[in-house]
Amino acid sequence: MPRKRSIIAAAPMAEILKQAGAERVSEKAAQALAAVVKNFAFEVSKDAVKFAKHAGRKTVKREDIDLARKEF
Amino acid sequence: MPRKRSIIAAAPMAEILKQAGAERVSEKAAQALAAVVKNFAFEVSKDAVKFAKHAGRKTVKREDIDLARKEF
Repeated sequence: MPRKRSIIAAAPMAEILKQAGAERVSEKAAQALAAVVKNFAFEVSKDAVKFAKHAGRKTVKREDIDLARKEF
Repeated sequence: MPRKRSIIAAAPMAEILKQAGAERVSEKAAQALAAVVKNFAFEVSKDAVKFAKHAGRKTVKREDIDLARKEF
């Protein structure tokens, strides 16, 4: 997955950290959060795809995401 | 938090879903995943900020993210 590292950028992660109360955020912290978030999104996605296929659909729908999020 | 909904866009979420095996992704599914991911990032961030403050720092560092991710 060549784009794995860049799908979620560090800048919005730094912004979320500031919304959560951070005064300052190191660049490596923002990058680390982006990686954590990407992995989480991928895990939820795998479940959502599984649920869509189980329902006989080729399209992942909102209900698949809603079900997948409950697994986490 | 006026930018809450737009910090993580739907397009990269659709891409992650396709990396996870989705053939097609509805727009609402991508938006729902973005919201789930944003909430997750915010929860991890709150813990990371807490750990940074506990360590007497104003800057959130990578080690705070690493510790926070283990809570989830």
